[in-house]
Amino acid sequence: MAKSWVNSAERIGADLHLELAGSGGRRAALIGALREAVRSGRLAPGTRLPPYRSLAADLGVARNTVADAYAELVAEGWLTARQGSGTRVAERTEPLRHAARVPEKAPPRARGPRHDLRQGTPDASAFPRAAWLTSYRRAVQQAPSEVFGPGDPAGRVELREALTEYLARARGVRTEPDRIVICSGFAHALRLLFGGQDRARSRVLGGPLAVEAYGLPFHWELLAAAGVRTVPIPLDEHGARVDRLARERTVLLTPAHQFPTGGPLHATRRAAVIDWARARGGVIVEDDYDGEFRYDRKPVGALQGLDPERVIHIGSVSKSLSPALRLGWMVLPERYVGDVLAAKGEREAWASVLDQLSLADFITSGSYDRHVRRMRQRYRSRRDRLVAALAEHAPYIEVTGIAAGLHAVLRLPPGTERSAVRAAAWQGIALDGLAAFRHPQSPETDMPARDGIVVGYATPSEHAYGAALDALCQVLPPGPL
Amino acid sequence: MAKSWVNSAERIGADLHLELAGSGGRRAALIGALREAVRSGRLAPGTRLPPYRSLAADLGVARNTVADAYAELVAEGWLTARQGSGTRVAERTEPLRHAARVPEKAPPRARGPRHDLRQGTPDASAFPRAAWLTSYRRAVQQAPSEVFGPGDPAGRVELREALTEYLARARGVRTEPDRIVICSGFAHALRLLFGGQDRARSRVLGGPLAVEAYGLPFHWELLAAAGVRTVPIPLDEHGARVDRLARERTVLLTPAHQFPTGGPLHATRRAAVIDWARARGGVIVEDDYDGEFRYDRKPVGALQGLDPERVIHIGSVSKSLSPALRLGWMVLPERYVGDVLAAKGEREAWASVLDQLSLADFITSGSYDRHVRRMRQRYRSRRDRLVAALAEHAPYIEVTGIAAGLHAVLRLPPGTERSAVRAAAWQGIALDGLAAFRHPQSPETDMPARDGIVVGYATPSEHAYGAALDALCQVLPPGPL
Repeated sequence: MAKSWVNSAERIGADLHLELAGSGGRRAALIGALREAVRSGRLAPGTRLPPYRSLAADLGVARNTVADAYAELVAEGWLTARQGSGTRVAERTEPLRHAARVPEKAPPRARGPRHDLRQGTPDASAFPRAAWLTSYRRAVQQAPSEVFGPGDPAGRVELREALTEYLARARGVRTEPDRIVICSGFAHALRLLFGGQDRARSRVLGGPLAVEAYGLPFHWELLAAAGVRTVPIPLDEHGARVDRLARERTVLLTPAHQFPTGGPLHATRRAAVIDWARARGGVIVEDDYDGEFRYDRKPVGALQGLDPERVIHIGSVSKSLSPALRLGWMVLPERYVGDVLAAKGEREAWASVLDQLSLADFITSGSYDRHVRRMRQRYRSRRDRLVAALAEHAPYIEVTGIAAGLHAVLRLPPGTERSAVRAAAWQGIALDGLAAFRHPQSPETDMPARDGIVVGYATPSEHAYGAALDALCQVLPPGPL
Repeated sequence: MAKSWVNSAERIGADLHLELAGSGGRRAALIGALREAVRSGRLAPGTRLPPYRSLAADLGVARNTVADAYAELVAEGWLTARQGSGTRVAERTEPLRHAARVPEKAPPRARGPRHDLRQGTPDASAFPRAAWLTSYRRAVQQAPSEVFGPGDPAGRVELREALTEYLARARGVRTEPDRIVICSGFAHALRLLFGGQDRARSRVLGGPLAVEAYGLPFHWELLAAAGVRTVPIPLDEHGARVDRLARERTVLLTPAHQFPTGGPLHATRRAAVIDWARARGGVIVEDDYDGEFRYDRKPVGALQGLDPERVIHIGSVSKSLSPALRLGWMVLPERYVGDVLAAKGEREAWASVLDQLSLADFITSGSYDRHVRRMRQRYRSRRDRLVAALAEHAPYIEVTGIAAGLHAVLRLPPGTERSAVRAAAWQGIALDGLAAFRHPQSPETDMPARDGIVVGYATPSEHAYGAALDALCQVLPPGPL
């Protein structure tokens, strides 16, 4: 087998990659090559073969030679020819594959849980397909040709302009298009900032990085892998204890809605952390992961608005639209723009430029606002249903944090979290306990562990949410554990 | 100013981020807040304001209060109201912006050269917009909901299946969907393989890495930044001197069409490098950057077909369709799949999932083949025109390499490259000399420098190519330099 592939360097067809090396004339050689391609599985059942003329031109043979070869193989049963659908590889009850093919593995995506209440994703069934397609079509049709060439690493200016306006209006962000850099999401932004990409290049920001004592382990692990140590600071009822910032020059915060515990950073703390940054030359990385979703008429503007030169504001469409788009943005103090662009590379190497243009259109046409408003109502109603169901079935459980976002934390009596998570798993409910989000270096004396479960109420589709909620209530006993 | 932003945490509207903190009743407060938002530039001219009802609900005020406030501001000239287009921020001859706004910078994208003959990009004007939109629409409409949730880091199975079939047929690649990992392009693949992302994590592959003495400096720099030393091996008329592989266990090759010098790796060398990999436990990274484009009816199959367990085959749509899509693929020996997936992360964090599905549809529907065939004819004709023009205007200049790809190398008399490149620049022609692609550590004794210019004949649009060619011929003197 291997030998024929060596020889295939010599005489092969263009799109079909056929070898005509056999003896006995070109017709026979072509028949042999096609037969072998089907037998070995290289040409899968149902594959349409090129028209006579094309293959003949590619192989430098007469058109009749190809027609004869196809006819012969149809006669032999390798191919089928049907009016209007061309010549195709015959469907076989047992398709032949490579002899060397490794055994079929289990499908990589295991069957999901019966009820998915894990935090972190919006309702995937609510993606605004029609509106997005409208924006995508408009973007692709109206794009100047240069769009399809190498891209600007800052991202499309159309999107940066749309974001400048949108973020000012909806999030109180003060910026301009030249200070925005498009990225593939929050994790990519962290990599660009903390130099995970290129170890010799001087980093944009260095460690150690102060982080909230509860947060996303995925972020801490990504930073650790990039050589950046994270130092947890405790949380209290006003949010992160920013007065505890010590040697660190950089702090990562979720000011609008602490993840996962759910409170906003108190106004005095917001002012205090800005004061700290000004006094110490520090910088605040603001993870505005769900800032659009607040249900109590008291949305909190981005911390960035307080001091655009001290805050790096990071957002994405992963919670508002879908993580499938891989689009996010960094709003930067002017002094970091050059370094972040250098870390990103000399051309756009990450985010799909067509998706960038679509998102720009989606925002400026008002579709983004409409979608966010619709989802806000939906999630708000889901949160209300969660609160009501708990009040009825498990009144001793408190839903902590503000009415906001895509998840809620159910505070549990001390020592009961693990058994609650386990009971949920037994009932086919996927969710996480608070312990999964606790920074491993956070001392118990500093920040006592809290028992709780994190319920991602946005994750199920609309029709599945009721059943998930019922199942959750079944798992939580009606009286104190 | 800063103070109002601190307070804005207290009472603000949802999408509009308005602060109603003033005294004098809600109507006056709303008017003041809207006026300030327009004055400060946060609400840009032309921005449409939310309907009365929505804003009233968000702010918790009566609908009439909003209607009155809008009417007042229309009267004052801040807003305009027109039947059918709602209430909008008035267009002003001099729009007011942030006082703190930095001076307008020059547009980030400098004006391009008059004639762009730089290598590396396809004709951006030839992107198949209609066919791509058809595939995108079909993909988005038919996608199951889970598509819009967190993605599999291997990439969508639909695309991996389509690539398995396509790469077997068109490039002689032998693989299966489970061995393919989708990425954002070749540079991303290099980063995933050589551990540039996460420095603590054990790399998939280590250095030193043998590379061809002529290649893309961007790749070498990316590897150097990731701490991987590249060691050049010389080229001769049969391609890379793979007999010169020494201590290295990994080699990066462009076997189908050496970049940039333009020859294929000879069949004996192909066999030899596979033998080397088997004997030394080595691995070959195959950069199949333009394998679809060969114009002489002798396309060379991928090296990967010779030994799928020894070759990592990397391709992308950056040359065949557009670099704007940021889509590529790695075809991996089985033993590397787990490590590459681990380097990529637990979820798809890079390539747009919708674009992945579109590309799968684009391939299986035959659109990809049709586009490649069309572009092959176009580029072939451009190369023919280049050769003919040179034969007429500068007959002493040899076009080296095979009839393939998106670029050609014009061999120049020794010592004339620099002046030729400079003469081109003076005439507004952007192109590079061969020296720009020479590995800095390649010793002159080992690999004598060649004088030449690299002409990316695919880069201009169809209507601009003739003028670019004429300009190029004007720059090259009719007799020996």
